[in-house]
Amino acid sequence: MTKPILKPNERIDGLPSQNINIIQNPDMFSYSLDAILLAHFAGVKGKGHGLTVDLGSGTGAVGLFYTPKVSGQVKLVEIQPELAEMAKRSINLNDLADRVTVIQSDMKAIFDEIKPGSVETVLTNPPYFPINESTKTNIDEHYEIARHELMINLPELAQITNKLLKNNGKVYMVHRPERLADIFSAFAMRKLMIKRVQFVYGKPNREANMVLIEAIKSGKSGGVRIMPPLTAYTESNEYTPEVQEILYGKAWEK
Amino acid sequence: MTKPILKPNERIDGLPSQNINIIQNPDMFSYSLDAILLAHFAGVKGKGHGLTVDLGSGTGAVGLFYTPKVSGQVKLVEIQPELAEMAKRSINLNDLADRVTVIQSDMKAIFDEIKPGSVETVLTNPPYFPINESTKTNIDEHYEIARHELMINLPELAQITNKLLKNNGKVYMVHRPERLADIFSAFAMRKLMIKRVQFVYGKPNREANMVLIEAIKSGKSGGVRIMPPLTAYTESNEYTPEVQEILYGKAWEK
Repeated sequence: MTKPILKPNERIDGLPSQNINIIQNPDMFSYSLDAILLAHFAGVKGKGHGLTVDLGSGTGAVGLFYTPKVSGQVKLVEIQPELAEMAKRSINLNDLADRVTVIQSDMKAIFDEIKPGSVETVLTNPPYFPINESTKTNIDEHYEIARHELMINLPELAQITNKLLKNNGKVYMVHRPERLADIFSAFAMRKLMIKRVQFVYGKPNREANMVLIEAIKSGKSGGVRIMPPLTAYTESNEYTPEVQEILYGKAWEK
Repeated sequence: MTKPILKPNERIDGLPSQNINIIQNPDMFSYSLDAILLAHFAGVKGKGHGLTVDLGSGTGAVGLFYTPKVSGQVKLVEIQPELAEMAKRSINLNDLADRVTVIQSDMKAIFDEIKPGSVETVLTNPPYFPINESTKTNIDEHYEIARHELMINLPELAQITNKLLKNNGKVYMVHRPERLADIFSAFAMRKLMIKRVQFVYGKPNREANMVLIEAIKSGKSGGVRIMPPLTAYTESNEYTPEVQEILYGKAWEK
């Protein structure tokens, strides 16, 4: 493969099951299994004609992995200019410029660009860690903004999500299990009713290290479904068959 | 075994791993795997000298299964006289009258009997189902009170639990996953910080049908741990090895 569109230190990582390639720069930010599992977990409403927004898209992994599942428009919202620029090049790389666009913006200002109540599906892989005394800022700005709640926190994210979504629109989020009480609290405050939860376990017999969440705007209270556990790796550090299929599609078995 | 203490339709069910026997009457109420898993999941603080209270104890299964794990007093609180009376006979059957007592009372009136802030551990297997139009009351009163939130609901239970517990005292609850949002909300309102959660799956690759919860009074926010999944039955409808051990101890392997 020739790589004319790549800048120094960049590489292309692909998700074969969706036939999508993402330009990465490990010095700035790399997507991880979290993004892949979120795009896989996220459902599609009706025929997938509605508008999808990826809030805090980074280099666009979640939104681009989700795009093959729907037929409508997908907007990637990213505050960091370097990451937004990489996402634009990945959109072109995948020949998806007719359906996927990047909005380089603070998501708090997104209503200049996206009309309230116009969104069918919100996807978000937000910063996982609250800010506290031990938050090391300025060490690597791109990673810090993506990882710590410097620019956006959970209550703000829930507020923006609620305002973006149509009634009965859905939000899909990946986060860390240790934030579960914060997530339930932030979502309940904005009438985002959690309907479906899946925990991801790094290995068998370990505690969960990831949680996938589906919530609906103005849904009825109660009725949370806890999906079967998803284990990422075997004891011998290989992807489990279930994750292999998410990554490579049915092809990996052949 | 002679059964002089049994009334008509009663039988004795045992939990070999804890060497505890419970008098049951299937016409009124029977404990289930929920009670056994809750008593197993519940931790012990320090040397277990503190006071334990089983709120809504029914025939006493949870409290009696937990008693062998601690050295302190255990109080069973049950509103239904017939179930409380059966619990008293089970206490005598297990020769535990020096440590376990029954308080036949509405738990809302429990502070006449138990001092606020005096309890180390609260155990509770409360009614799972909210009251709604389809709640069939009066069909079988004993089961209805145990199953539906007729006498107590989650916010009330959280309030009573908070008032009973010492600072840093813990509550262990078993419930249904579909009520998870309600549980997080009710507990957060009363500063019961959820620290540890385990989901129980009826069979492999099914949704969870039970949730075990540990919360601490006045604990710090955040930090929820999701324990490894517990699967109850194999595809061929036998208890899994993990559950076998909880039921029968190490002995079942021999």
